Amino acid sequence: MSIDLSIVGKRLEPITHTYTERDVMLYALGIGAGTDELPFTYERDLKVLPTFGVIPAFPAMFSLGPVMQVNPMMVLHGEQRIELYAPIPPRGTLTTIPTVRAIYDKTKGALVIVDAETVDDKGTRIFKNTFGTFARGEGGFGGDRGPSGPRNVPPDRRPDAVVEMTTLPQQALLYRLSGDMNPLHADPDFAKMGGFDRPILHGLCTFGHVGRAVLRTYCGNDPARFKALDVRFAGVVFPGETIVTEMWKTGASDVILQAKTKERGEVVISAAAATIAG
Amino acid sequence: MSIDLSIVGKRLEPITHTYTERDVMLYALGIGAGTDELPFTYERDLKVLPTFGVIPAFPAMFSLGPVMQVNPMMVLHGEQRIELYAPIPPRGTLTTIPTVRAIYDKTKGALVIVDAETVDDKGTRIFKNTFGTFARGEGGFGGDRGPSGPRNVPPDRRPDAVVEMTTLPQQALLYRLSGDMNPLHADPDFAKMGGFDRPILHGLCTFGHVGRAVLRTYCGNDPARFKALDVRFAGVVFPGETIVTEMWKTGASDVILQAKTKERGEVVISAAAATIAG
Repeated sequence: MSIDLSIVGKRLEPITHTYTERDVMLYALGIGAGTDELPFTYERDLKVLPTFGVIPAFPAMFSLGPVMQVNPMMVLHGEQRIELYAPIPPRGTLTTIPTVRAIYDKTKGALVIVDAETVDDKGTRIFKNTFGTFARGEGGFGGDRGPSGPRNVPPDRRPDAVVEMTTLPQQALLYRLSGDMNPLHADPDFAKMGGFDRPILHGLCTFGHVGRAVLRTYCGNDPARFKALDVRFAGVVFPGETIVTEMWKTGASDVILQAKTKERGEVVISAAAATIAG
Repeated sequence: MSIDLSIVGKRLEPITHTYTERDVMLYALGIGAGTDELPFTYERDLKVLPTFGVIPAFPAMFSLGPVMQVNPMMVLHGEQRIELYAPIPPRGTLTTIPTVRAIYDKTKGALVIVDAETVDDKGTRIFKNTFGTFARGEGGFGGDRGPSGPRNVPPDRRPDAVVEMTTLPQQALLYRLSGDMNPLHADPDFAKMGGFDRPILHGLCTFGHVGRAVLRTYCGNDPARFKALDVRFAGVVFPGETIVTEMWKTGASDVILQAKTKERGEVVISAAAATIAG
């Protein structure tokens, strides 16, 4: 692409997403919830996992298409934040307005930050996503480097809580039915083209597992107490691996966290923090 | 209910079902297919598992509602047959015409046999289901007892092939998203009301596993070679258990089979046969 900084600050086309309880339960199963989490996987008094909010807004990550040309095989999902304003309804039509907040020049690539605010059919704000996508090979245009330096650094002590969640070998096949059909997560040939031995789990699927760990540990599984989750994608999970989420309670409302694969010890989520009702 | 034999032979209201590749892949995952069966779980050159045919026709099993009153908690799925005329398309709209073929008096209950033929939007016959539902407490009306005696009895030798498939603890939660939302398969309270310690797997989910075993063993995973599957539901599978399908090739096109749980040795599918392209 050629970087055109004039799009920064511009509102992009709204995205409308209609879903039902079936989609909500499918998402929950897709991020590893099961019989121990029936409030999220069974329709009686169904509650919606807070990280489901990435689904209606997901196309915002790619809504730059008409504005600037990027090769999708060269794009990595680098960072993700979700902030909840209200519990997500178990069915409905939501509208998301994406805005390009910044394009940073990271030399090896461009980091494009898109804010995407989502409202219900009455215009009530439900949640806001921030997608950070890294376009490899698009840096060096002489732009602002953006914020850098460490953030959300874990305290120098053992974690206050650790949650292990084993993913299914077919976890990515299941998760992708919630909307991100990128063949990188299903097709061995595409995975090889992307430089991986085999298909990798979606970053946002790992994000959902980490969200469940926070919700269970610090929110009593009550989505109304889950206010925000902010992560950097530092590595990949292969379906079937176990995601180990380490959490530190650093304030009444603050949790710092990171996640690793149990099998390889690779850090997959770093510089991460959650905000919970204090 | 009061048994009204005058409905026998009557065509019931047609059922229309529209589905997409997403539904086909969700069904495949619901009956335990995964990364080893990508032709059924990934949209590139997607093939449809033959037992998917029970899904568009499933409401036929309950379409007696307007015709005769049955307490759904008293109904058991007793028998199932599917016969394939053509490969099932990966998306489309199918129409099913159910007909009550027979109501047998089994003393302790009534066995209602519904034939349901399914055609595509050009009127081409794709498959036919036969649902046998047992209405507990509705027998003794002085009707025909129907066919009895052993059928599809395995030969007196060790099975020619055995396939083991371990179900997921959340298998029923996943399978039910394909349409059979009976809470018996999700809700511990409903399971207790039905006389079970915990939620049980759908009979048709077990049926799907058995179908995969036949397809893999005798059809080279080619749905066009799978012509029919006929089973009796003899026992229940609890999600998480391993289904062991034992198969005997008894003719060029004929397979006799049965299935047990590995954990309890309980026979769950009996008097079963498959027809394959010879």
